[in-house]
Amino acid sequence: MLTLHESQRRVSRFQEMLRGKEASAALLLLPIDIYYFTGTRQNSALWIPAEGEPVLLVRKSLSRARAESPLADIRPFPPSKELPALFGAEGSAVGMTFDAVPVQQHAFYSKVLPGRNFVDVSMLVRELRSVKSPFEIELLRRSSAMLDSVFGEVPAFLKAGMRELDLAAEMEYRLRKAGHEGFVRMRAFNQELFGGMAVSAGAATYGFFDGAVTGKGLSSASPQGASLDEIRENEPVLVDFAGVANGYIVDMTRMFVIGTLDPELQRAFDLSLEIQEAVRLAMVPGAVCEEIFGLAAGMADRAGFGGNFMGMPGEQSRFVGHGVGLELDELPVLAQGFTMPLQAGQVVAVEPKFVLPGKGAIGIENTFVVTDQGGSRLSGLPDEIVFIRA
Amino acid sequence: MLTLHESQRRVSRFQEMLRGKEASAALLLLPIDIYYFTGTRQNSALWIPAEGEPVLLVRKSLSRARAESPLADIRPFPPSKELPALFGAEGSAVGMTFDAVPVQQHAFYSKVLPGRNFVDVSMLVRELRSVKSPFEIELLRRSSAMLDSVFGEVPAFLKAGMRELDLAAEMEYRLRKAGHEGFVRMRAFNQELFGGMAVSAGAATYGFFDGAVTGKGLSSASPQGASLDEIRENEPVLVDFAGVANGYIVDMTRMFVIGTLDPELQRAFDLSLEIQEAVRLAMVPGAVCEEIFGLAAGMADRAGFGGNFMGMPGEQSRFVGHGVGLELDELPVLAQGFTMPLQAGQVVAVEPKFVLPGKGAIGIENTFVVTDQGGSRLSGLPDEIVFIRA
Repeated sequence: MLTLHESQRRVSRFQEMLRGKEASAALLLLPIDIYYFTGTRQNSALWIPAEGEPVLLVRKSLSRARAESPLADIRPFPPSKELPALFGAEGSAVGMTFDAVPVQQHAFYSKVLPGRNFVDVSMLVRELRSVKSPFEIELLRRSSAMLDSVFGEVPAFLKAGMRELDLAAEMEYRLRKAGHEGFVRMRAFNQELFGGMAVSAGAATYGFFDGAVTGKGLSSASPQGASLDEIRENEPVLVDFAGVANGYIVDMTRMFVIGTLDPELQRAFDLSLEIQEAVRLAMVPGAVCEEIFGLAAGMADRAGFGGNFMGMPGEQSRFVGHGVGLELDELPVLAQGFTMPLQAGQVVAVEPKFVLPGKGAIGIENTFVVTDQGGSRLSGLPDEIVFIRA
Repeated sequence: MLTLHESQRRVSRFQEMLRGKEASAALLLLPIDIYYFTGTRQNSALWIPAEGEPVLLVRKSLSRARAESPLADIRPFPPSKELPALFGAEGSAVGMTFDAVPVQQHAFYSKVLPGRNFVDVSMLVRELRSVKSPFEIELLRRSSAMLDSVFGEVPAFLKAGMRELDLAAEMEYRLRKAGHEGFVRMRAFNQELFGGMAVSAGAATYGFFDGAVTGKGLSSASPQGASLDEIRENEPVLVDFAGVANGYIVDMTRMFVIGTLDPELQRAFDLSLEIQEAVRLAMVPGAVCEEIFGLAAGMADRAGFGGNFMGMPGEQSRFVGHGVGLELDELPVLAQGFTMPLQAGQVVAVEPKFVLPGKGAIGIENTFVVTDQGGSRLSGLPDEIVFIRA
């Protein structure tokens, strides 16, 4: 439950940002952005003026929005003709998140609010949301604990001969019973994900997903994650799942092997741990995102694994970590082209991984909070590959 | 796997529609729309000229798109400066699905393709996709068979004292092992859904979800579907899940009771079966969507359940069925305001339901194909409430 204090702190920080961009207000429409400021994701529109009190206009359900949110001003969504009196003046600049809002929604508000100059505030919202409060970090710890507990059970149910799908189903079942909310939100327009992936040797495959590992999936309609391939002995089994509680997402990857592991894969794994530690130490406020990526990519290059780092040859991703929170793909991104400095309280899933065609995918992933002492790790689960007797 | 013939048939029908709207082409960006025409949902943009061959431009993964799609012209996504030569001429009208495409994407293509007049073709795409080919109906049968099989197992695991979440987890686990792809796509901007819902008496609650039943969910970040409430004896347990295979979605609801059922709920359930049958008989080509809704709502009114039909009092949904296919919320919608006539081959989930505050939610849902003889039902599972000994 979002407290009034926490909600006011978020709104007030955002209002500062709006004033810095000379916007008179923002009209937020994406449910998870609305949830961030109000504590409710009912079907609604949120008006945040650069000065003054926010107003939540609810299409459905008004009673539930009022029960869930500490916001003072929550009203039924009014007839269109009443909107101009509520929403700024003609000629004013009004922020909207153009990365997520469809053209039709923009057109609707442009029509019913004539003369407002809608401007893109996607990056303001994403930057604000990237820095987590102690309250949010506490919620992230719950998601992390859910993952620690379920990943710890893998050796009890992973067997040679089961399909990747069976392993995924066992993970999803246990995560769900532990309170996983099921839905892993992603912001990027053309990305989609189910809860995670459980993949074996065949994971060394090409795919649309903006990660190191994509998986074969079950069909060309869902070409990512677990497939019907059987898990065999002596191959790397990569298990990468998100934990979700109260909307907050933590990301984790661990490796399992039934039997023994190819020495080249073991070297790649050891390197992933070294990179993770180097990245962790570099995760201090002020450090530049793309420089941290460069550090990681350089280590991979020098060890002779540059062509395998973060994806299949020719389609490698140019990142080594991504922000997590209410969405899986938040800021900051430890990636080439991201020149922004890290801020204390940002939360990043660091996932150095290697894909070796014909052998499989291997690596590690943990979620860290940026602090003056470097990344502070949420998970207490050991990183080592778990070997299971064949 | 989409055949070349099927892909060409879809493209050619769409080209007719574009010519009817005097658009010179369409630029499709939503992954599932691209999948419909090409058989691949890799990260890409699809150009369909009103005359001639479509071109798929792939950002990631080109090799996988080529492996999955029968389309002849599949290329790497070119540098922006090469796009104007590919995509129509200045002054031409180019279709885009404004219901789904974010403002940023529209702005990007408006900038790199100056002088094109982008127009909304959301309804063309949605209408085309609403009429299923025999190939698609065969795929829908697989999703339906998956549901029949798993719903049939419910009496074996439903127990008093388990949480709604536990029941949902058991359903999801079995559906997943049967090949469920996990992700249930919805097109509407502000809707979200996990695989389905398993809800008991407390299901009589308000919520954002555009359905009859919303559920409490696990938190205000995911305020729909199963909650932590315990399932008790003598209350209606409503189980509403989607089956998904090859991207194709079928929707189904069945009722379970441990012990006995309140007679008022039983009367509401009997009425839901009568409404389902009346709607089924009315589902012939040419029948007007909103008239079918009117028929259903009228039956609910006359039986004294008008105030409970399709939702909580005051926030009732004004529909009784929705199209399904590659998305859960396809056309046609049997709803007030939808004046379009039904077409043979459209596939509709019919779900007359009643919500009785303090008692719970009850009803039925089956998916039907529109034919000259009325709705042809996909599921072979009986509709009756399944009573389990307390």
